[in-house]
Amino acid sequence: MIDIKDRICDVVADKVMSAEAAAEFVKDGDNLGVSGFTPSGYPKAVPLALAEKGKKTPFKVNVWTGASVGPEIDQAMVEAGIIDRRLPYQTNGTMRKAINAGKVKYADIHLSHMAQMVRYGFMAGRPTGPDVAIVEVCKINDLGDGKVGLIPTTSMGNSSSYVAGAKKVIVEVNTTQPVGLEGMHDSYVPLDPPYRKAIPIEKPEDRIGTTYIPCEVDKIVAVVPCDITDKVRPLGEIDEDAKHMGANLVNFLKNEVKEGRLPKNLLPLQSGVGSVANAVINGLVNSDFEDLTVYTEVIQDGMFDLIDAGKLRVASGTALTPPPECQKKFYENVEHYKKYLLLRPQEISNSPEVARRIGVIAMNTAIEVDIYGNVNSTHVCGTKLMNGVGGSGDFARNGYLTVFFTNSLAKGGKISSVVPFCSHIDHATLDVDVIVSERGVADLRGLSPKEKAPIIIDQIANPKYQPWLYDYFKRACEACGNSQTPHILSEAFDCYKLFAETGSMEGMVEGK
Amino acid sequence: MIDIKDRICDVVADKVMSAEAAAEFVKDGDNLGVSGFTPSGYPKAVPLALAEKGKKTPFKVNVWTGASVGPEIDQAMVEAGIIDRRLPYQTNGTMRKAINAGKVKYADIHLSHMAQMVRYGFMAGRPTGPDVAIVEVCKINDLGDGKVGLIPTTSMGNSSSYVAGAKKVIVEVNTTQPVGLEGMHDSYVPLDPPYRKAIPIEKPEDRIGTTYIPCEVDKIVAVVPCDITDKVRPLGEIDEDAKHMGANLVNFLKNEVKEGRLPKNLLPLQSGVGSVANAVINGLVNSDFEDLTVYTEVIQDGMFDLIDAGKLRVASGTALTPPPECQKKFYENVEHYKKYLLLRPQEISNSPEVARRIGVIAMNTAIEVDIYGNVNSTHVCGTKLMNGVGGSGDFARNGYLTVFFTNSLAKGGKISSVVPFCSHIDHATLDVDVIVSERGVADLRGLSPKEKAPIIIDQIANPKYQPWLYDYFKRACEACGNSQTPHILSEAFDCYKLFAETGSMEGMVEGK
Repeated sequence: MIDIKDRICDVVADKVMSAEAAAEFVKDGDNLGVSGFTPSGYPKAVPLALAEKGKKTPFKVNVWTGASVGPEIDQAMVEAGIIDRRLPYQTNGTMRKAINAGKVKYADIHLSHMAQMVRYGFMAGRPTGPDVAIVEVCKINDLGDGKVGLIPTTSMGNSSSYVAGAKKVIVEVNTTQPVGLEGMHDSYVPLDPPYRKAIPIEKPEDRIGTTYIPCEVDKIVAVVPCDITDKVRPLGEIDEDAKHMGANLVNFLKNEVKEGRLPKNLLPLQSGVGSVANAVINGLVNSDFEDLTVYTEVIQDGMFDLIDAGKLRVASGTALTPPPECQKKFYENVEHYKKYLLLRPQEISNSPEVARRIGVIAMNTAIEVDIYGNVNSTHVCGTKLMNGVGGSGDFARNGYLTVFFTNSLAKGGKISSVVPFCSHIDHATLDVDVIVSERGVADLRGLSPKEKAPIIIDQIANPKYQPWLYDYFKRACEACGNSQTPHILSEAFDCYKLFAETGSMEGMVEGK
Repeated sequence: MIDIKDRICDVVADKVMSAEAAAEFVKDGDNLGVSGFTPSGYPKAVPLALAEKGKKTPFKVNVWTGASVGPEIDQAMVEAGIIDRRLPYQTNGTMRKAINAGKVKYADIHLSHMAQMVRYGFMAGRPTGPDVAIVEVCKINDLGDGKVGLIPTTSMGNSSSYVAGAKKVIVEVNTTQPVGLEGMHDSYVPLDPPYRKAIPIEKPEDRIGTTYIPCEVDKIVAVVPCDITDKVRPLGEIDEDAKHMGANLVNFLKNEVKEGRLPKNLLPLQSGVGSVANAVINGLVNSDFEDLTVYTEVIQDGMFDLIDAGKLRVASGTALTPPPECQKKFYENVEHYKKYLLLRPQEISNSPEVARRIGVIAMNTAIEVDIYGNVNSTHVCGTKLMNGVGGSGDFARNGYLTVFFTNSLAKGGKISSVVPFCSHIDHATLDVDVIVSERGVADLRGLSPKEKAPIIIDQIANPKYQPWLYDYFKRACEACGNSQTPHILSEAFDCYKLFAETGSMEGMVEGK
C-alpha cells in the first residue's frame, strides 16, 4: 500500500484502509458529497472501487460534487451504472451522454447555491447533508479535542460544507499532491438564515476562514491512500477567432478605463474555463494593465502567465486547473505561486454578495445568443445538455460588467450563434451588458430590445447569416407594430428545424 | 400658492416657486431622476408642468424612476409626447401602449441594479447621474454647513442616489403627506467598487443610514409646493382562485415548518404587488404564524392587517402603497404604524446580498410558466410588455425559497398559463423552487427537467389543457431520446399561433 504516514496524524492512523474496503461504507441509495471542481482535487481511488463494486452487486448512489470532476467519477461510475442523480455541473462525454439518454438525472444549480441547498434540505429526498462525504486531501493534521484538519488539494468546491454535514467521511490522501499546498485554502461555512452574517470579504485577497477543513475524528470511517493524479488536460491552441475575441475585449476594457468607467488596474476578473477565456487572459498578459486581481472559479494557465509577468496581485478561486505543463511548474514552485493564490469554497468564490461588492468583470461563454441579447449557456438546439450553467449565473447577474463571448459561427459555419430566439435561455438579456465575438463588440448597456437587435446582428452575427437576421427583425417589428420585443413566434425556431433536417442553418438566408 | 413654510427651513426659502417656473430648469435631452415607487412618493406638480410645457414647445426627456409611478408622469408626460426613454419599470396603460408602439424606449433592469448602473455610467449616453433630480418630500430640514436633509414621503426608490448624483435638484414639498413620516426612512448610498463595503443588515429591522436624504443647498434649484395626493388604488376583491393560491401557499409553508426547513416564525417575507400577494398575506393574517417579518419592495394593505393582528415584528420596504381606505388609517395613526415600518432605497430593499443573507421567502407572480419551470414575468405572447421584471429577479435568484404564483388559466380559460415553452423567459427554471396555482403546489426543488414536467402539468395546469401538455411532453421525450430538456421546437410555440388566429388556445387539446 502507498505510504502516507508522514501525511496523516496518529488519531486517524487506525482508519487507513484500501479503497475497496472504504467502498463498503457506501450503501445503495446514498447521497455522496464529493470534493472536486474541474478535474482537480476530486477523489479517485474510492470512486473506482465503487464502480468495481457496482459491476458485481448493482446499487445506485447520487453524486454531489463541486462542479465537473474526472473520469474516475463521471466515466467509470456511469459505465458501471451506479449513478442515479448527478449535481450540480459536469463536462464529461460519458456523463453527458447518460444524462441526454435519460439514464442519469441531472439538474442545473447555480454553483454558489449548491452547498446551501443541501444544508437547507432542498435536495431530492430532502436530506440535510450527504450520507457519505468523500474528499481528497494532501494531509491530515491533528487539531486536538477529537478533531482533525483536512488539508484540501487543488480544489475546495463544496468540501467544507459536505464534510460538516455528512454522517460519514472518507478521506483520500493523495500522494501526488504536494503537502506544500497547505496554506493556500480558506475554508469557511456560513451560518444559515436567520443567523447568517455578512461574508467579510472586501478585497479578493481577504482571508476569512481556516487553512483546513475541520472534521471530527469520529466521523471519519476510512483514510484511503491514493496516487492517481488529477486528470488535467492540455489546453487547445488559441485559434484566430479566440485571439480576435481576446483583442476585442482588451480594447473594450481599455476604452472603459479611458472613459473613467473602470479603474486603471480594472476590477477583479472572473473568467470562464476554456480557450476563449485563456485568449482573453493572454490578451491581458500582453497588455499594459498592471496590479490585476482575479476573483473567479477556476485558476487556469493564463493566471500563471500573469504572475510570471508581474501583473497579478492575487487570484482567488475555488479550483486550480492548469494544463499538465503548467501544473508541473506550479508543483515545483508551489511556495512561490501560492503567495498569489487562494482557494475558497465555491459558495464564497461564486458568492453574488462578494461579486457585486468587489465588482467583478464577469466573462463567460455562450452557446448561442439571440438578437435581443438573451443567452443560452447550456443546451444544444434546446434539448441536449452540453455542460451546465455552472457559475455563469452567479457572476453574470452580479458583476460590475457582464460580458459573454461567442463565436459568430459554430459547426464550421453550419450554425449561426446568433438566432432570433434562443432555443434555451439561461441568462435573460437584462443580465447581459456586452457580447463579444471574433467580429466585434455589442455594448448593450441601457438599451431597449429594439435598439439591441441591430447592434447584435451587426457586431456579433456572421455576415453570411446577417441578411436572414435583419429580415426577421424587420418583419417582426412590422408584424408586432413595434412592440417591446418583436417576434414572429411561428418562425422563431425555424432555424433549428432546418438544421435538424439538413444539418445546416445556411438555408435560412433568403434565396438559398 | 400652497403654504409650505412650516415644512421647509430658511436656507431654501428663497427657492420656492411654482411648478411652471421649476419646469424651466429642465432642458431638451435631459435625464430626469425622479422619486417614486408604485404610485407612491413620486413628484406630481412638476411633471404636469413639464407636460404642459411640452405641448407648447416640443422637447424630450428620459425618465428614470424607482419603479412604476402615477399618471402625472406615465400618462400626462406620455400624452404630451415628451418621454424618449423610460426606466426601469412601469405599470401604466398609457405608458405601456407607448412602449409597445415603439414610441417610448424601455428596458427592463433589475430594480436593485438601477441606481448603481446610473452611478457606473452605464445608461444610454453614459451620464453618471441625472441632469435633474425631481423628488417629493414632506419636509426639508437644515443640516448646517450648506446642507439640508430631505425627508421623503411614501417611497424611497432611487431618490438617495439620484439626489447625490444630480447636477440640479427640484424638490416638491407635498402637503398631503404627513410630516409624521419623518423617522420612517433609512437613506444609504453604498460606495462603488473597489471601495464598497458589506451592507450591514443582518435582520429586517436593522437601520444603517439616515432618516433624511442629504443634499447641498446649492444644488437645489427649486422648491415647489404641491398638494396632489398619491394615486393609490383600491384593491380588487380577493377572488376564489387567489384565495386558493393563498391557502395552498400557507399549507406548504406550514409543512416546511413541520419538516424543520423553516423556523416557526418563517423567514422574512417578500411578496409581489397585487391581489394574489394580498390573498397570501391575508392567509397569513388568519393563520397561527406569529412574530413575522417582511423584507420586500412594497408594503401593502395586508401588512397593516398583520400589524393590527399583532403578528408582524417589522416590515421593511422601499414603498408604502396601501389602498385609499388603508392609507387614511395609516395617515391618521402614522406614529403607531411607523414603529413597524421602514423604507429603504430599492438598492437595499432589493439587495441580493441582504435577501440571501437574511433568507427571504420570495413570492412573485408569473404571466406564464412552461412545463420545465421557466417563468415569463413580463411579456404577453412573447412580444408585448406587460409591466416589467421589477424586483422579481432580485429576490427569486437570492431567496431562501422562491415561489411563483400563476392561475392555471387566463382570459377566461382561453389561455393556458402552463405552456410547452415560455414565449419569453425572465427566470430560468433553476431560479424557481415552487410554483403555486389555485389547483396545487409544484415543489421542484432538486429535480431534473423531466421530473418537473409531470408535476407542473399535474399541479399547476388546468385539466382542460392537461391532455395537450402531457401529449407534448411524451412526444418530446420520444423525439429527443429522453434528452435533458425534451422539446419539439417546431411546435413549441404553436399555441401562440393558434391564439393569434382564433383568440383561444383551446384547440391545442387533441380532438378539439
